[in-house]
Amino acid sequence: MTGRLLGVGVGPGDPELLTMKAVRIINESPVIAYVSAGGRPSMARQIAAQCLAPGQLEINLTLPMQPIPEIAQAAYEEGAARIGAELERGRDVAVLCEGDPFIYGSFAQLLDLLGERYPTEVVPGIASFTAAAAAARMPLVGRSQALTVLPATLPADELAARLARADAAVILKLGRHFAKVREVVEELGLLDRTIYVEHASAARERVVPLAALAVHEAPYFSLLLLPADRRS
Amino acid sequence: MTGRLLGVGVGPGDPELLTMKAVRIINESPVIAYVSAGGRPSMARQIAAQCLAPGQLEINLTLPMQPIPEIAQAAYEEGAARIGAELERGRDVAVLCEGDPFIYGSFAQLLDLLGERYPTEVVPGIASFTAAAAAARMPLVGRSQALTVLPATLPADELAARLARADAAVILKLGRHFAKVREVVEELGLLDRTIYVEHASAARERVVPLAALAVHEAPYFSLLLLPADRRS
Repeated sequence: MTGRLLGVGVGPGDPELLTMKAVRIINESPVIAYVSAGGRPSMARQIAAQCLAPGQLEINLTLPMQPIPEIAQAAYEEGAARIGAELERGRDVAVLCEGDPFIYGSFAQLLDLLGERYPTEVVPGIASFTAAAAAARMPLVGRSQALTVLPATLPADELAARLARADAAVILKLGRHFAKVREVVEELGLLDRTIYVEHASAARERVVPLAALAVHEAPYFSLLLLPADRRS
Repeated sequence: MTGRLLGVGVGPGDPELLTMKAVRIINESPVIAYVSAGGRPSMARQIAAQCLAPGQLEINLTLPMQPIPEIAQAAYEEGAARIGAELERGRDVAVLCEGDPFIYGSFAQLLDLLGERYPTEVVPGIASFTAAAAAARMPLVGRSQALTVLPATLPADELAARLARADAAVILKLGRHFAKVREVVEELGLLDRTIYVEHASAARERVVPLAALAVHEAPYFSLLLLPADRRS
Protein backbone atom coordinates (compact mmCIF):
# COMPACT_ATOMS: atom_id res chain seq x y z
CA MET A 1 0.00 0.00 0.00
CA THR A 2 1.43 3.35 -1.04
CA GLY A 3 0.55 6.64 0.65
CA ARG A 4 -1.76 9.27 -0.81
CA LEU A 5 -0.68 12.48 -2.51
CA LEU A 6 -2.86 15.19 -0.93
CA GLY A 7 -3.08 18.67 -2.47
CA VAL A 8 -4.41 20.91 0.29
CA GLY A 9 -5.51 24.51 -0.26
CA VAL A 10 -4.67 26.69 2.77
CA GLY A 11 -6.42 29.83 1.53
CA PRO A 12 -5.18 33.38 1.02
CA GLY A 13 -3.50 34.25 4.32
CA ASP A 14 -5.76 34.28 7.40
CA PRO A 15 -5.19 30.94 9.20
CA GLU A 16 -8.88 31.00 10.18
CA LEU A 17 -9.75 30.70 6.46
CA LEU A 18 -8.49 27.12 6.34
CA THR A 19 -11.35 24.69 5.98
CA MET A 20 -11.97 22.17 8.72
CA LYS A 21 -11.03 19.47 6.21
CA ALA A 22 -7.68 21.11 5.47
CA VAL A 23 -6.93 21.41 9.19
CA ARG A 24 -7.70 17.72 9.73
CA ILE A 25 -5.80 16.44 6.69
CA ILE A 26 -2.71 18.54 7.43
CA ASN A 27 -2.71 17.52 11.08
CA GLU A 28 -3.13 13.81 10.28
CA SER A 29 -0.49 13.59 7.55
CA PRO A 30 2.88 12.16 8.59
CA VAL A 31 4.61 14.18 5.87
CA ILE A 32 3.94 17.73 4.70
CA ALA A 33 5.48 19.40 1.67
CA TYR A 34 5.51 22.98 0.40
CA VAL A 35 7.19 25.20 -2.13
CA SER A 36 9.35 28.18 -1.22
CA ALA A 37 10.93 30.59 -3.67
CA GLY A 38 13.97 32.81 -3.64
CA GLY A 39 15.11 31.77 -0.18
CA ARG A 40 11.99 33.23 1.48
CA PRO A 41 9.94 31.11 3.89
CA SER A 42 6.92 29.31 2.42
CA MET A 43 3.76 31.41 2.73
CA ALA A 44 1.64 28.24 2.66
CA ARG A 45 3.56 26.78 5.63
CA GLN A 46 3.16 30.04 7.56
CA ILE A 47 -0.59 30.03 6.98
CA ALA A 48 -0.90 26.39 8.10
CA ALA A 49 1.59 26.59 10.98
CA GLN A 50 -1.03 26.10 13.70
CA CYS A 51 -2.26 22.85 12.14
CA LEU A 52 1.11 21.10 12.08
CA ALA A 53 1.65 18.13 14.36
CA PRO A 54 4.81 17.24 16.28
CA GLY A 55 7.10 14.78 14.51
CA GLN A 56 5.91 15.51 10.97
CA LEU A 57 8.53 15.23 8.27
CA GLU A 58 8.70 18.46 6.23
CA ILE A 59 9.75 18.51 2.58
CA ASN A 60 10.68 22.03 1.46
CA LEU A 61 10.76 22.30 -2.30
CA THR A 62 12.92 25.36 -2.96
CA LEU A 63 12.58 27.23 -6.24
CA PRO A 64 15.07 29.83 -7.50
CA MET A 65 14.22 33.55 -7.18
CA GLN A 66 14.16 34.04 -10.95
CA PRO A 67 11.58 31.90 -12.74
CA ILE A 68 13.96 29.98 -15.01
CA PRO A 69 11.86 27.10 -16.38
CA GLU A 70 14.65 24.50 -16.50
CA ILE A 71 15.82 25.15 -12.95
CA ALA A 72 12.24 25.20 -11.66
CA GLN A 73 11.49 21.93 -13.43
CA ALA A 74 14.59 20.32 -11.93
CA ALA A 75 13.50 21.53 -8.48
CA TYR A 76 10.02 20.05 -8.97
CA GLU A 77 11.52 16.75 -10.12
CA GLU A 78 13.82 16.58 -7.13
CA GLY A 79 10.90 17.46 -4.79
CA ALA A 80 8.66 14.89 -6.49
CA ALA A 81 11.35 12.24 -5.97
CA ARG A 82 11.49 13.01 -2.24
CA ILE A 83 7.68 13.00 -1.98
CA GLY A 84 7.54 9.78 -4.05
CA ALA A 85 9.96 8.06 -1.65
CA GLU A 86 7.60 8.80 1.27
CA LEU A 87 4.55 7.66 -0.70
CA GLU A 88 6.38 4.40 -1.49
CA ARG A 89 6.84 3.88 2.26
CA GLY A 90 3.05 4.10 2.62
CA ARG A 91 3.02 7.57 4.17
CA ASP A 92 0.49 10.22 3.10
CA VAL A 93 2.03 13.50 1.94
CA ALA A 94 0.02 16.73 2.31
CA VAL A 95 1.23 19.38 -0.12
CA LEU A 96 0.33 22.82 1.28
CA CYS A 97 -0.91 25.17 -1.45
CA GLU A 98 -1.64 28.90 -1.12
CA GLY A 99 -5.22 29.71 -2.06
CA ASP A 100 -6.70 26.85 -4.06
CA PRO A 101 -4.45 24.06 -5.45
CA PHE A 102 -5.90 24.25 -8.97
CA ILE A 103 -6.13 28.03 -9.51
CA TYR A 104 -2.60 28.97 -10.64
CA GLY A 105 -1.13 26.52 -8.15
CA SER A 106 2.23 24.78 -8.30
CA PHE A 107 0.48 21.56 -7.24
CA ALA A 108 -0.28 20.93 -10.93
CA GLN A 109 3.45 20.31 -11.53
CA LEU A 110 3.63 17.72 -8.76
CA LEU A 111 0.46 16.09 -10.00
CA ASP A 112 2.05 15.74 -13.45
CA LEU A 113 5.05 13.99 -11.93
CA LEU A 114 3.28 11.78 -9.35
CA GLY A 115 -0.45 11.66 -10.11
CA GLU A 116 -0.36 8.58 -12.30
CA ARG A 117 1.55 6.47 -9.81
CA TYR A 118 -0.15 7.37 -6.52
CA PRO A 119 -3.73 7.86 -5.31
CA THR A 120 -4.41 11.57 -5.22
CA GLU A 121 -6.90 13.73 -3.34
CA VAL A 122 -7.37 17.46 -3.49
CA VAL A 123 -8.88 19.74 -0.84
CA PRO A 124 -10.07 23.02 -2.37
CA GLY A 125 -9.08 26.29 -0.69
CA ILE A 126 -10.37 29.85 -0.52
CA ALA A 127 -9.14 31.62 -3.67
CA SER A 128 -7.41 34.97 -3.11
CA PHE A 129 -9.87 36.86 -5.28
CA THR A 130 -12.93 35.81 -3.29
CA ALA A 131 -11.12 36.88 -0.10
CA ALA A 132 -10.27 40.19 -1.79
CA ALA A 133 -13.90 40.82 -2.77
CA ALA A 134 -14.94 39.99 0.80
CA ALA A 135 -12.35 42.46 2.14
CA ALA A 136 -13.61 45.16 -0.23
CA ARG A 137 -17.26 44.23 0.56
CA MET A 138 -17.89 44.23 -3.19
CA PRO A 139 -20.01 41.61 -4.98
CA LEU A 140 -17.87 40.37 -7.88
CA VAL A 141 -20.36 38.84 -10.28
CA GLY A 142 -24.04 37.95 -10.37
CA ARG A 143 -27.03 37.10 -12.51
CA SER A 144 -26.10 36.46 -16.19
CA GLN A 145 -22.68 38.09 -15.97
CA ALA A 146 -19.36 36.40 -16.72
CA LEU A 147 -16.25 36.57 -14.54
CA THR A 148 -12.81 36.75 -16.16
CA VAL A 149 -9.74 35.86 -14.09
CA LEU A 150 -6.51 37.14 -15.65
CA PRO A 151 -2.87 36.79 -14.62
CA ALA A 152 -0.93 40.08 -14.76
CA THR A 153 1.80 38.26 -16.69
CA LEU A 154 -0.24 38.51 -19.92
CA PRO A 155 1.00 41.00 -22.54
CA ALA A 156 -0.65 44.45 -22.37
CA ASP A 157 -2.59 44.06 -25.61
CA GLU A 158 -4.05 40.74 -24.56
CA LEU A 159 -4.98 42.07 -21.12
CA ALA A 160 -6.68 45.05 -22.81
CA ALA A 161 -8.65 42.87 -25.25
CA ARG A 162 -9.84 40.52 -22.52
CA LEU A 163 -10.68 43.32 -20.07
CA ALA A 164 -12.63 45.22 -22.70
CA ARG A 165 -14.92 42.21 -23.21
CA ALA A 166 -15.29 41.30 -19.51
CA ASP A 167 -18.37 41.88 -17.36
CA ALA A 168 -16.42 41.40 -14.13
CA ALA A 169 -12.68 40.81 -13.94
CA VAL A 170 -9.89 40.02 -11.53
CA ILE A 171 -6.19 40.52 -12.31
CA LEU A 172 -3.90 38.38 -10.19
CA LYS A 173 -0.19 38.28 -9.33
CA LEU A 174 0.51 41.96 -9.99
CA GLY A 175 4.07 42.18 -8.62
CA ARG A 176 6.43 43.70 -11.16
CA HIS A 177 3.64 43.81 -13.77
CA PHE A 178 1.74 46.46 -11.82
CA ALA A 179 2.70 49.54 -13.90
CA LYS A 180 1.76 47.78 -17.16
CA VAL A 181 -1.60 46.62 -15.81
CA ARG A 182 -2.44 50.03 -14.36
CA GLU A 183 -1.80 51.65 -17.74
CA VAL A 184 -4.11 49.16 -19.47
CA VAL A 185 -6.87 49.78 -16.92
CA GLU A 186 -6.49 53.54 -17.28
CA GLU A 187 -6.54 53.46 -21.09
CA LEU A 188 -9.77 51.46 -21.03
CA GLY A 189 -11.40 54.09 -18.80
CA LEU A 190 -11.81 51.54 -15.98
CA LEU A 191 -9.70 53.28 -13.34
CA ASP A 192 -12.66 54.50 -11.28
CA ARG A 193 -14.24 51.10 -10.81
CA THR A 194 -11.01 49.24 -10.01
CA ILE A 195 -10.03 48.26 -6.46
CA TYR A 196 -6.50 47.30 -5.43
CA VAL A 197 -6.19 44.61 -2.74
CA GLU A 198 -2.92 43.53 -1.14
CA HIS A 199 -2.51 40.46 1.10
CA ALA A 200 -6.27 39.82 1.27
CA SER A 201 -7.38 38.44 4.67
CA ALA A 202 -3.87 38.62 6.19
CA ALA A 203 -2.89 40.99 9.02
CA ARG A 204 -1.28 43.37 6.52
CA GLU A 205 -4.35 43.45 4.23
CA ARG A 206 -4.86 46.68 2.31
CA VAL A 207 -7.87 47.73 0.19
CA VAL A 208 -7.54 50.95 -1.85
CA PRO A 209 -9.26 52.39 -4.94
CA LEU A 210 -6.70 52.00 -7.73
CA ALA A 211 -7.10 55.69 -8.61
CA ALA A 212 -5.86 56.63 -5.12
CA LEU A 213 -2.79 54.38 -5.22
CA ALA A 214 0.48 56.18 -5.88
CA VAL A 215 2.97 53.35 -6.29
CA HIS A 216 4.65 51.72 -9.26
CA GLU A 217 5.35 48.34 -7.71
CA ALA A 218 3.13 45.92 -5.87
CA PRO A 219 3.78 42.68 -3.99
CA TYR A 220 3.16 39.35 -5.72
CA PHE A 221 0.18 38.74 -3.43
CA SER A 222 -1.79 41.70 -4.71
CA LEU A 223 -4.61 41.90 -7.23
CA LEU A 224 -7.14 44.16 -8.88
CA LEU A 225 -10.91 43.73 -8.67
CA LEU A 226 -13.16 45.10 -11.41
CA PRO A 227 -16.61 44.13 -10.11
CA ALA A 228 -19.47 43.85 -12.57
CA ASP A 229 -21.84 46.76 -12.96
CA ARG A 230 -24.58 45.89 -10.47
CA ARG A 231 -27.28 47.43 -12.65
CA SER A 232 -26.50 45.51 -15.86
CA MET B 1 -24.90 50.15 18.78
CA THR B 2 -26.45 48.21 15.91
CA GLY B 3 -25.55 44.62 15.06
CA ARG B 4 -23.35 43.57 12.16
CA LEU B 5 -24.58 42.16 8.86
CA LEU B 6 -22.37 39.10 8.25
CA GLY B 7 -22.28 37.41 4.84
CA VAL B 8 -20.86 33.94 5.46
CA GLY B 9 -19.85 31.54 2.68
CA VAL B 10 -20.60 27.93 3.66
CA GLY B 11 -18.94 26.32 0.62
CA PRO B 12 -20.29 23.90 -1.98
CA GLY B 13 -21.82 21.09 0.08
CA ASP B 14 -19.41 19.15 2.33
CA PRO B 15 -19.84 20.57 5.86
CA GLU B 16 -16.10 19.95 6.40
CA LEU B 17 -15.41 22.57 3.70
CA LEU B 18 -16.60 25.37 5.94
CA THR B 19 -13.73 27.53 7.07
CA MET B 20 -12.92 27.75 10.75
CA LYS B 21 -13.94 31.40 10.59
CA ALA B 22 -17.36 30.55 9.14
CA VAL B 23 -17.94 27.94 11.84
CA ARG B 24 -17.06 30.44 14.58
CA ILE B 25 -19.10 33.33 13.14
CA ILE B 26 -22.18 31.19 12.53
CA ASN B 27 -21.98 29.66 15.99
CA GLU B 28 -21.54 33.03 17.73
CA SER B 29 -24.31 34.90 15.89
CA PRO B 30 -27.60 35.27 17.78
CA VAL B 31 -29.49 35.41 14.47
CA ILE B 32 -28.95 33.44 11.27
CA ALA B 33 -30.66 34.05 7.95
CA TYR B 34 -30.81 32.12 4.71
CA VAL B 35 -32.64 31.99 1.41
CA SER B 36 -34.81 29.09 0.31
CA ALA B 37 -36.54 28.77 -3.03
CA GLY B 38 -39.61 27.00 -4.29
CA GLY B 39 -40.55 25.56 -0.91
CA ARG B 40 -37.40 23.41 -0.71
CA PRO B 41 -35.22 23.56 2.41
CA SER B 42 -32.24 25.93 2.28
CA MET B 43 -29.10 24.18 1.03
CA ALA B 44 -26.93 26.69 2.91
CA ARG B 45 -28.67 25.88 6.21
CA GLN B 46 -28.25 22.15 5.60
CA ILE B 47 -24.52 22.59 4.97
CA ALA B 48 -24.09 24.68 8.12
CA ALA B 49 -26.45 22.64 10.34
CA GLN B 50 -23.68 21.34 12.61
CA CYS B 51 -22.47 24.87 13.44
CA LEU B 52 -25.81 26.19 14.65
CA ALA B 53 -26.18 27.02 18.34
CA PRO B 54 -29.25 26.42 20.54
CA GLY B 55 -31.56 29.40 20.84
CA GLN B 56 -30.57 31.12 17.61
CA LEU B 57 -33.32 33.02 15.84
CA GLU B 58 -33.65 31.83 12.23
CA ILE B 59 -34.88 34.09 9.44
CA ASN B 60 -35.92 32.08 6.38
CA LEU B 61 -36.18 34.27 3.30
CA THR B 62 -38.41 32.30 0.94
CA LEU B 63 -38.25 32.95 -2.79
CA PRO B 64 -40.82 31.71 -5.30
CA MET B 65 -40.02 28.68 -7.48
CA GLN B 66 -40.17 30.71 -10.68
CA PRO B 67 -37.62 33.53 -10.81
CA ILE B 68 -40.08 36.42 -11.21
CA PRO B 69 -37.99 39.55 -10.53
CA GLU B 70 -40.75 41.58 -8.83
CA ILE B 71 -41.77 38.79 -6.46
CA ALA B 72 -38.13 37.99 -5.67
CA GLN B 73 -37.41 41.66 -4.98
CA ALA B 74 -40.41 41.88 -2.65
CA ALA B 75 -39.17 38.77 -0.81
CA TYR B 76 -35.70 40.28 -0.41
CA GLU B 77 -37.20 43.52 0.87
CA GLU B 78 -39.34 41.70 3.39
CA GLY B 79 -36.35 39.59 4.50
CA ALA B 80 -34.15 42.69 4.72
CA ALA B 81 -36.76 44.35 6.94
CA ARG B 82 -36.74 41.37 9.33
CA ILE B 83 -32.92 41.29 9.35
CA GLY B 84 -32.81 45.07 9.81
CA ALA B 85 -35.08 44.85 12.85
CA GLU B 86 -32.60 42.45 14.51
CA LEU B 87 -29.63 44.64 13.58
CA GLU B 88 -31.43 47.61 15.15
CA ARG B 89 -31.68 45.62 18.37
CA GLY B 90 -27.90 45.28 18.32
CA ARG B 91 -27.85 41.63 17.30
CA ASP B 92 -25.44 40.32 14.67
CA VAL B 93 -27.10 38.49 11.77
CA ALA B 94 -25.12 35.81 9.89
CA VAL B 95 -26.49 35.29 6.39
CA LEU B 96 -25.59 31.77 5.23
CA CYS B 97 -24.52 31.71 1.57
CA GLU B 98 -23.86 28.64 -0.59
CA GLY B 99 -20.33 28.69 -2.01
CA ASP B 100 -18.90 32.20 -1.79
CA PRO B 101 -21.17 35.18 -0.96
CA PHE B 102 -19.89 37.31 -3.86
CA ILE B 103 -19.76 34.74 -6.69
CA TYR B 104 -23.35 34.68 -7.99
CA GLY B 105 -24.66 34.95 -4.45
CA SER B 106 -27.98 36.33 -3.30
CA PHE B 107 -26.13 38.16 -0.52
CA ALA B 108 -25.55 41.02 -2.98
CA GLN B 109 -29.29 41.81 -2.87
CA LEU B 110 -29.29 42.04 0.93
CA LEU B 111 -26.13 44.15 0.86
CA ASP B 112 -27.89 46.58 -1.50
CA LEU B 113 -30.78 46.91 0.94
CA LEU B 114 -28.85 47.00 4.23
CA GLY B 115 -25.16 47.64 3.55
CA GLU B 116 -25.30 51.40 3.83
CA ARG B 117 -27.05 51.42 7.19
CA TYR B 118 -25.23 48.65 9.06
CA PRO B 119 -21.60 47.58 9.49
CA THR B 120 -20.97 44.66 7.17
CA GLU B 121 -18.44 41.84 7.12
CA VAL B 122 -18.04 39.06 4.61
CA VAL B 123 -16.43 35.65 5.12
CA PRO B 124 -15.39 34.13 1.78
CA GLY B 125 -16.35 30.52 1.04
CA ILE B 126 -15.12 27.68 -1.17
CA ALA B 127 -16.53 28.30 -4.65
CA SER B 128 -18.29 25.34 -6.28
CA PHE B 129 -15.98 25.31 -9.29
CA THR B 130 -12.80 24.91 -7.23
CA ALA B 131 -14.46 22.03 -5.37
CA ALA B 132 -15.46 20.54 -8.73
CA ALA B 133 -11.89 20.75 -10.07
CA ALA B 134 -10.67 19.12 -6.86
CA ALA B 135 -13.23 16.33 -7.26
CA ALA B 136 -12.13 15.78 -10.87
CA ARG B 137 -8.44 16.05 -9.86
CA MET B 138 -7.98 18.47 -12.76
CA PRO B 139 -5.91 21.65 -12.58
CA LEU B 140 -8.18 24.42 -13.90
CA VAL B 141 -5.78 27.17 -14.90
CA GLY B 142 -2.07 27.98 -14.58
CA ARG B 143 0.82 30.08 -15.83
CA SER B 144 -0.30 32.90 -18.20
CA GLN B 145 -3.72 31.42 -18.91
CA ALA B 146 -7.06 33.14 -18.25
CA LEU B 147 -10.06 31.57 -16.53
CA THR B 148 -13.58 32.40 -17.71
CA VAL B 149 -16.52 31.72 -15.40
CA LEU B 150 -19.85 31.66 -17.25
CA PRO B 151 -23.44 31.22 -16.06
CA ALA B 152 -25.43 28.75 -18.16
CA THR B 153 -28.22 31.33 -18.34
CA LEU B 154 -26.35 33.23 -21.09
CA PRO B 155 -27.77 32.96 -24.63
CA ALA B 156 -26.17 30.22 -26.79
CA ASP B 157 -24.38 32.64 -29.12
CA GLU B 158 -22.80 34.54 -26.26
CA LEU B 159 -21.75 31.33 -24.53
CA ALA B 160 -20.18 30.16 -27.80
CA ALA B 161 -18.30 33.42 -28.38
CA ARG B 162 -16.92 33.51 -24.85
CA LEU B 163 -16.02 29.80 -24.80
CA ALA B 164 -14.23 30.04 -28.15
CA ARG B 165 -11.90 32.72 -26.72
CA ALA B 166 -11.34 31.08 -23.31
CA ASP B 167 -8.17 29.31 -22.17
CA ALA B 168 -9.96 27.59 -19.30
CA ALA B 169 -13.67 27.86 -18.59
CA VAL B 170 -16.32 26.88 -16.10
CA ILE B 171 -20.05 26.92 -16.82
CA LEU B 172 -22.21 27.18 -13.70
CA LYS B 173 -25.87 26.66 -12.80
CA LEU B 174 -26.68 24.23 -15.62
CA GLY B 175 -30.16 23.17 -14.52
CA ARG B 176 -32.67 23.55 -17.32
CA HIS B 177 -30.01 25.16 -19.56
CA PHE B 178 -28.07 21.91 -19.84
CA ALA B 179 -29.19 20.86 -23.35
CA LYS B 180 -28.38 24.30 -24.79
CA VAL B 181 -24.95 24.38 -23.18
CA ARG B 182 -24.09 20.85 -24.28
CA GLU B 183 -24.92 21.74 -27.87
CA VAL B 184 -22.66 24.81 -27.73
CA VAL B 185 -19.77 22.76 -26.30
CA GLU B 186 -20.24 20.08 -28.96
CA GLU B 187 -20.39 22.56 -31.84
CA LEU B 188 -17.12 24.14 -30.68
CA GLY B 189 -15.43 20.71 -30.72
CA LEU B 190 -14.83 20.89 -26.95
CA LEU B 191 -16.84 17.83 -25.93
CA ASP B 192 -13.81 15.63 -25.28
CA ARG B 193 -12.15 17.97 -22.83
CA THR B 194 -15.29 18.84 -20.87
CA ILE B 195 -16.08 17.32 -17.47
CA TYR B 196 -19.53 17.33 -15.89
CA VAL B 197 -19.66 17.67 -12.09
CA GLU B 198 -22.83 17.43 -10.01
CA HIS B 199 -23.07 18.36 -6.29
CA ALA B 200 -19.29 18.79 -5.93
CA SER B 201 -18.00 17.71 -2.51
CA ALA B 202 -21.44 16.54 -1.28
CA ALA B 203 -22.33 12.90 -0.57
CA ARG B 204 -24.09 12.64 -3.94
CA GLU B 205 -21.13 14.10 -5.89
CA ARG B 206 -20.78 12.85 -9.46
CA VAL B 207 -17.90 13.44 -11.90
CA VAL B 208 -18.39 12.27 -15.51
CA PRO B 209 -16.85 13.15 -18.89
CA LEU B 210 -19.54 15.17 -20.66
CA ALA B 211 -19.24 12.90 -23.71
CA ALA B 212 -20.34 9.93 -21.55
CA LEU B 213 -23.36 11.67 -20.06
CA ALA B 214 -26.70 10.65 -21.54
CA VAL B 215 -29.14 13.05 -19.92
CA HIS B 216 -30.94 16.17 -21.07
CA GLU B 217 -31.50 17.78 -17.70
CA ALA B 218 -29.16 18.52 -14.85
CA PRO B 219 -29.66 19.82 -11.32
CA TYR B 220 -29.05 23.49 -10.55
CA PHE B 221 -25.95 22.53 -8.55
CA SER B 222 -24.10 21.10 -11.52
CA LEU B 223 -21.41 22.61 -13.71
CA LEU B 224 -19.01 21.96 -16.55
CA LEU B 225 -15.23 22.22 -16.32
CA LEU B 226 -13.15 22.96 -19.39
CA PRO B 227 -9.61 22.93 -17.96
CA ALA B 228 -6.87 24.78 -19.82
CA ASP B 229 -4.55 22.84 -22.09
CA ARG B 230 -1.66 21.98 -19.75
CA ARG B 231 0.91 22.26 -22.54
CA SER B 232 0.02 25.77 -23.73
